[in-house]
Amino acid sequence: MLRLYDYFESGNAYKVRLLLTQLGLRFEHVELDIVKGETRTPEFLAKNPNGRIPLLELEDGTFLAESNAIQWYLADGTPFLPDDPACRARVLQWMFFEQYSHEPYIAVVRFWVFKGEADQHAGEIDAKRAAGYAALQVMESHLLEREFFVAGRYTIADIALYAYTHVADEGGFDLAPYPSVRAWLARVASQPRHIPITFSDWS
Amino acid sequence: MLRLYDYFESGNAYKVRLLLTQLGLRFEHVELDIVKGETRTPEFLAKNPNGRIPLLELEDGTFLAESNAIQWYLADGTPFLPDDPACRARVLQWMFFEQYSHEPYIAVVRFWVFKGEADQHAGEIDAKRAAGYAALQVMESHLLEREFFVAGRYTIADIALYAYTHVADEGGFDLAPYPSVRAWLARVASQPRHIPITFSDWS
Repeated sequence: MLRLYDYFESGNAYKVRLLLTQLGLRFEHVELDIVKGETRTPEFLAKNPNGRIPLLELEDGTFLAESNAIQWYLADGTPFLPDDPACRARVLQWMFFEQYSHEPYIAVVRFWVFKGEADQHAGEIDAKRAAGYAALQVMESHLLEREFFVAGRYTIADIALYAYTHVADEGGFDLAPYPSVRAWLARVASQPRHIPITFSDWS
Repeated sequence: MLRLYDYFESGNAYKVRLLLTQLGLRFEHVELDIVKGETRTPEFLAKNPNGRIPLLELEDGTFLAESNAIQWYLADGTPFLPDDPACRARVLQWMFFEQYSHEPYIAVVRFWVFKGEADQHAGEIDAKRAAGYAALQVMESHLLEREFFVAGRYTIADIALYAYTHVADEGGFDLAPYPSVRAWLARVASQPRHIPITFSDWS
C-alpha cells in the first residue's frame, strides 16, 4: 500500500491527501511533526535527503518527494491531468508558479504566524506579503474569465494552488479584493470527495 | 517558429536555450533586459502576467512560462525525458527541488553579486549561502553513486540543475567540497551539442 509521510498543518501535504482521497486510493498515513524536527532525523533523511514532507513511499519501497511531482505521478492517466501536451505543460506551469511565486510568500507567512514567530520576522514580512499579493493578482487576472486554471476543468493545478490560497487568511492575507479567486476557491471546495485541510480520520 | 523571450544572464532561460539547441529546434530569440524592467512593461505582462522570462511563444501564438514547464513541453517524447512513469515523476521531483530548494539561494545570491548588490543584502546572504550549500549537499549525496539524476542518463532534470550549479562560483559558492557534483557538471558539459551559458550566436 502507498504510505504518505505527512504533517497535518502543511498545505503541500494536503495537496497529496486531497488527491489520494479524490482518486479513491487507500494509503497508510504517517504523521511527522516538522516543528519538532521529525523530518530531519537520520532515519527520515535516509528516505528523503532534502528532509521535507510530503513524501510518498511507493509500493516498491522507493520514495517520491515534492508535492507537485507526487501529484503528477498519482494523477497521470486520470481526469485530474489532461492528455493534451500543451495543457499538460500549462498544468506544470501553474504548479511551478505555485512553488516559486506563491508558496514561498503565502505559505511561509502563514507558517510564521502559526509558530508565533511573526514578530521575529517583522523585517521580512512586508516584502513577503507584497509578493504574496502579487501572486494572488496573477491568479485573479487568470481566473477573471476562467472557471479553473487549465483546460476549463478541475486538475492538479487547481489542487496545487488551492492548498495555500484557501488558508491565506491564516497568514493575514485579505482575499476580499480577489473575487474571481474566491469564486474559484468555492468551485474547488465543491468538487466530489473534497476533504478539508483539517480532515484527519485516516482509519 | 518558436519564439523565446530570454535574458542572457538567466540560468532559467539558459535551460531552454540549451535544450532547444540539443533538440536541434530552430527558434527566434528575443532578448529582454530584466534589470531595466523590460519584463514588467504592459506589453510583456500581456504575454506573461507573472512578468518573468524565459517565456516561450508557441507556433499557435500562445505562451508558456516557467523554465521547467517549458523544458517538459519540449522534451516529452524525446530521449531527454524518460517514458517510465516513476522516472518521469523523479525528473519532476528534481525540477521542483531545483526551483524551491536550489534556485532561490544559489541563483539569487549570484544575481545580487551580478547587480553589485551583495553589500545591500548583507543581512540575508549568510542564510541564503547556507541553504544553497544544503542543496549542493543533497545533490552530492545523490550523485555519489550515480552518473545523472534520473534513470542513469542525461535528462531535463540534469539541465535544470546544471543551469545555476555550474555558475554557482559567480555567487561565491565553493564547489571544491562536492567532487561528485563537479564530476557530474563535467559529464553534462560533454553532452552532444552542449552550448555554454555565454553562447549568443542565434543568427
